[in-house]
Amino acid sequence: MKTEEIVNEIRNQDAGAAWITTPLNVFYFSGYLSDPHERLLALLITAEGEEVLFVPKLEVEEVKASPFTGKVVGNADGEDPFKLVDYNFDKILVEEDHLTLKRQKELIEGFGVETFGSIDQTIKDLRNVKTPEEIDKIKEAARLADKCIEIGVDFLEEGVTEKQVVRHIEYEIQTKYGVSAMSFDTMVLFGDHAASPHGIPGDRQLQKDEYVLFDLGVIYENYCSDMTRTVAFGNPSEKAQSVYNVVLEAEKAAIDMIKPGVVIGDVDRKARGIIADAGYGEYFVHRLGHGLGLEEHEYQDVAGFNTNQFVPGMVVTVEPGVYVPGEVGVRIEDDILVTEDGNEVLTHYDK
Amino acid sequence: MKTEEIVNEIRNQDAGAAWITTPLNVFYFSGYLSDPHERLLALLITAEGEEVLFVPKLEVEEVKASPFTGKVVGNADGEDPFKLVDYNFDKILVEEDHLTLKRQKELIEGFGVETFGSIDQTIKDLRNVKTPEEIDKIKEAARLADKCIEIGVDFLEEGVTEKQVVRHIEYEIQTKYGVSAMSFDTMVLFGDHAASPHGIPGDRQLQKDEYVLFDLGVIYENYCSDMTRTVAFGNPSEKAQSVYNVVLEAEKAAIDMIKPGVVIGDVDRKARGIIADAGYGEYFVHRLGHGLGLEEHEYQDVAGFNTNQFVPGMVVTVEPGVYVPGEVGVRIEDDILVTEDGNEVLTHYDK
Repeated sequence: MKTEEIVNEIRNQDAGAAWITTPLNVFYFSGYLSDPHERLLALLITAEGEEVLFVPKLEVEEVKASPFTGKVVGNADGEDPFKLVDYNFDKILVEEDHLTLKRQKELIEGFGVETFGSIDQTIKDLRNVKTPEEIDKIKEAARLADKCIEIGVDFLEEGVTEKQVVRHIEYEIQTKYGVSAMSFDTMVLFGDHAASPHGIPGDRQLQKDEYVLFDLGVIYENYCSDMTRTVAFGNPSEKAQSVYNVVLEAEKAAIDMIKPGVVIGDVDRKARGIIADAGYGEYFVHRLGHGLGLEEHEYQDVAGFNTNQFVPGMVVTVEPGVYVPGEVGVRIEDDILVTEDGNEVLTHYDK
Repeated sequence: MKTEEIVNEIRNQDAGAAWITTPLNVFYFSGYLSDPHERLLALLITAEGEEVLFVPKLEVEEVKASPFTGKVVGNADGEDPFKLVDYNFDKILVEEDHLTLKRQKELIEGFGVETFGSIDQTIKDLRNVKTPEEIDKIKEAARLADKCIEIGVDFLEEGVTEKQVVRHIEYEIQTKYGVSAMSFDTMVLFGDHAASPHGIPGDRQLQKDEYVLFDLGVIYENYCSDMTRTVAFGNPSEKAQSVYNVVLEAEKAAIDMIKPGVVIGDVDRKARGIIADAGYGEYFVHRLGHGLGLEEHEYQDVAGFNTNQFVPGMVVTVEPGVYVPGEVGVRIEDDILVTEDGNEVLTHYDK
């Protein structure tokens, strides 16, 4: 059980409780998802295993309808939630990666906390390994991303704008496939515009014989997919095609390496080496990939500096790219599940 | 000038610099907007008025195309950005409301910081008073929100679902009016479903003689609108209509009070009193409103506990609501600009 791991870590660090505040981490442990904006949302887990969810008063009914079975403390605007309970902890574990200095002061005053420890890595390690239920959701999100690419490619014609393709994909996937949200803003970039790795779709019109870059993802039951295809519309220039082939070779070689026990950074180096050998090293300016799950970018980086190893149940993206300013941008990205003895590619659209 | 105010505060607090990290605050001062996800984005302003923008290396070209004219430090994944510069500050002002414990440690190690002060209130006070340029953008966002309500009302017919109305509004406003993003997830709720103040649009079908609640906003050049209308489809029950009339009376009375010098909390109490006198006090469970600008919810709260006064240039929402579980939910919300001698309502759809 996930909460047990938190209780173990509380005891390991001689603390009295853990205070979890990232909304998706609160959801991960409680089953209750909320975006509290500036209001307080926190899951308190004590060393005794008690679970207390602090939510805005408005949301108490929704918590009762959720899978969460612990105690609920609803606080109204302007009310001090720490006065509604009676806890004192000398030491508490917090998300150092999320807790702000302001929220830290509240814990010092509200719970009498004197020492803070970190619960970040324990949560990252748990979320790093997906359960079978989580994997099923990511697979469905990946299937829907494949469908988005198909919808987008079918819609391409000379003169259509990047924004029009984006809107068509999102409208179709939402109205015909029941998707209610994308993982992030859908990216569709034409020709040399794709040479900007973080470009924003605009009114550029599609011309014959250029590449179209699609980078998109779908959220299915709170789990994300994230995939990229660079698709030829007509016959792109010889140079553009050679860039495409290098990126594809690097992507396939990287995926082939992924299995339990392999050092994550080595896979980044493999892809980067192939691209550098082809003379495009300076144009591959980002990490090879990242973890995927409740967030479209989550722990951990698939990057050269990562000395951790792959373990079964991890889901990561592999997405090498080459961006030659003013000429061409190519990125190819798949979602990869690490299995007991290798990996499974979850995204299937042709490449 | 906005940056001058920051420099003044740095000197007032005997600090060496301010470190601004909320993406919208970085945009507010630098003109460069970015969502860095887990990467570092920060604007350093020194006591001497130097401005240095720390961005992911990928974004350096985009910064150069932005209005920002200071120094740019781009850092690649895995690189320590603090090693790319040579600064030491004994004391630095940070956003306590945004800086995490992890980012605080980086400042201690990277800049040798020994003492932290807060720059939060200075930024809030600046953003609290909108410039004429900001007001023009909010007015346009409000005009587009009016248009959204009109589109939604025209689309109503028996049997249509909440989700279908949401999609129709968003599709039309995006394709015909050039809007690229809503301020938040558009809310359309029918009949008793609107009794959940944070309800999520679903497959409930519209029936004759019930109210339809629309809560939506549009982003125009990074500025938000946020408005709510509760519109009768046919003839709702007498009780539902009487709830509507009470909410409308409370909303109008609250707006009438708004002018420079009035205590903000008094306006909340005015609306709450009218609703309580009508016997619905227990069903008005949230603050009366909030500030509006780069964010759809920003400083400051229009709530009973707020003892500050209105000042010219503030933009706030006024949005009383009454939610009788299982029966009816009514909320009416307008965007209000505080002028020199009163106020101007920026949202105009009939109510």
